[in-house]
Amino acid sequence: MRIALDGMGGDKAPEAVVKGALRALGETPSDVELILVGQPQVLEPLLEREGAPSDRLRLHPATQVVAMDASPGHALRRLPDSSIRVCYNLHKSGEADAVISAGNSGATMALGVVVMGRLAEVDRPALASVFPALKGPTLLIDVGANVDCTPLMLMQFGYMGSVYAEKVMGLTHPKVGLLSIGEEPGKGNTAVKQAADHLNSSGLNFIGNVEGRDMFVGDTQVIVCDGFVGNVCIKLVEGFADTFEYFFREYMSHSIKGRLGGLLLREQFRDVASRLDYSNYGGAPLLGINGVGLIAHGASSPKAIATAVRVTADTVRAEVTRHLAEGLEQYRGRLLGEAALD
Amino acid sequence: MRIALDGMGGDKAPEAVVKGALRALGETPSDVELILVGQPQVLEPLLEREGAPSDRLRLHPATQVVAMDASPGHALRRLPDSSIRVCYNLHKSGEADAVISAGNSGATMALGVVVMGRLAEVDRPALASVFPALKGPTLLIDVGANVDCTPLMLMQFGYMGSVYAEKVMGLTHPKVGLLSIGEEPGKGNTAVKQAADHLNSSGLNFIGNVEGRDMFVGDTQVIVCDGFVGNVCIKLVEGFADTFEYFFREYMSHSIKGRLGGLLLREQFRDVASRLDYSNYGGAPLLGINGVGLIAHGASSPKAIATAVRVTADTVRAEVTRHLAEGLEQYRGRLLGEAALD
Repeated sequence: MRIALDGMGGDKAPEAVVKGALRALGETPSDVELILVGQPQVLEPLLEREGAPSDRLRLHPATQVVAMDASPGHALRRLPDSSIRVCYNLHKSGEADAVISAGNSGATMALGVVVMGRLAEVDRPALASVFPALKGPTLLIDVGANVDCTPLMLMQFGYMGSVYAEKVMGLTHPKVGLLSIGEEPGKGNTAVKQAADHLNSSGLNFIGNVEGRDMFVGDTQVIVCDGFVGNVCIKLVEGFADTFEYFFREYMSHSIKGRLGGLLLREQFRDVASRLDYSNYGGAPLLGINGVGLIAHGASSPKAIATAVRVTADTVRAEVTRHLAEGLEQYRGRLLGEAALD
Repeated sequence: MRIALDGMGGDKAPEAVVKGALRALGETPSDVELILVGQPQVLEPLLEREGAPSDRLRLHPATQVVAMDASPGHALRRLPDSSIRVCYNLHKSGEADAVISAGNSGATMALGVVVMGRLAEVDRPALASVFPALKGPTLLIDVGANVDCTPLMLMQFGYMGSVYAEKVMGLTHPKVGLLSIGEEPGKGNTAVKQAADHLNSSGLNFIGNVEGRDMFVGDTQVIVCDGFVGNVCIKLVEGFADTFEYFFREYMSHSIKGRLGGLLLREQFRDVASRLDYSNYGGAPLLGINGVGLIAHGASSPKAIATAVRVTADTVRAEVTRHLAEGLEQYRGRLLGEAALD
């Protein structure tokens, strides 16, 4: 198995990506090989410094880099040899089985869709993100690929999320909920209310509407929302975690009691912060493209990159793309029929 | 000043409301009087038990109660003598200067709009909620009154939020941001992108797009979003705070070090939880109606009810309704002109 890893993408790239790649080799079975993609003059010295083994890691050149703040359109039209695009080219040609990038997420999504193409039954690929929850992980889909969603798109997100939860997260008959503003049927905006009707007759294990707070409970394994709402949610959670940490630091520095208590609980603080930090869940899979693409967090550390490689290897091994295609195939008539009505 | 307080609304009503009312009398100037509205057979024994003083608190009868899970339509059409409606009737007739309810929020919003009417320049009243943030409070508007919003409605929310932030929260020339999925102009869904254009030429101190994480920073004092997104956000934050607390409790009970650390930091935990708990900010003002309505959190404790009374008294004293009407008046031409184009 070969995974193409964007060596140039991410706030801490290229150092964190190179270190993460080496860490990943130590944490994954020996059949996992990495293709590090990027500018050789930047990556080669780093690999030499880290003493990278050559048998499971090789460099593949890409002359251009997509800046973190570049528009997806710029990446698509002006950067034919960007590290992200070259990763997908390798995947498309069969030289790689999956792509990981911690770089510009808009460009990574757009290039994933354009280079790999969509699965036949999917109108729009969606980005999914795993959240920690009390009773186990929850998959939120979409977290940013589609900002304006039709009810039918929301239903497709439910299908894709359900297949991913079953095949990669190992959940049996996962419960699918629709993010809304009240649990009662009929609550929500126009698109959500119509999506609930679609999902009710979808054959999925659809449990109805869920609310923001349910994302952390874990009773619902797949939560469907449009990419605008989902993206606001994941960034809100990031901000909240940072604020909580800041408050505590401030408090603990103010008294001897606080400092002592903080010392005693230091490991716990770290552990809780880590359990609640979604960036430790490996990244967000882009579901619905004709391939495997994982969008790692922009601020990914070496550890996060290593986790992303592990999750991606699991995704390839679980043959998620095939299962998505087959899972959606059985609903093809329904999907096409309703698409025609939309 | 007289405030009509729904004695029957809230998860812990009527006890918490009665206790909160008495607590509020001790915490507000003596010119604040409360009219407790509800079923006399329920409220009278409680008032007697608590030894309520009669000079600043009086009971006003309402025979019906809106259940917490009733639909707003049911409350509007079937319950002509509900405690919420009677509160607004007292406000409409001038016997009360404001209304507070911790009851069914959908019904409280709907009845507020129907009984009080809208301000002339407001298409849709909106619910605002104050969030704690590192650099000071942030007002999020709308958090649930309108689930499908036009760009023009979002602009009006910006106006209303800005006036409230200035007059009640005491902020000078408050910064207004638009909740989106990236700070760059042009990011967002269709409605948000058009709203950004409106807000750019609004005369408000509009700083552009903000993201979920900015809600806790406090650099932006007013954050505009549609009621679907806003409601998901406030419930997400509730869920996150609960989860964090749960994790810590679990950790601290597992070791002697944890228990000792927890003991030392107990007050800090409470304080942080309280600073981050938006229900301690008094409740959500319903802006744009021709009156003052405050929707307290359903789970309001006596302390939360007392805070709600204090905030409401401030709102009445600040003549928010007059300022909103005047503030919007100067934009009347613009608002009507653009409404015609919408």
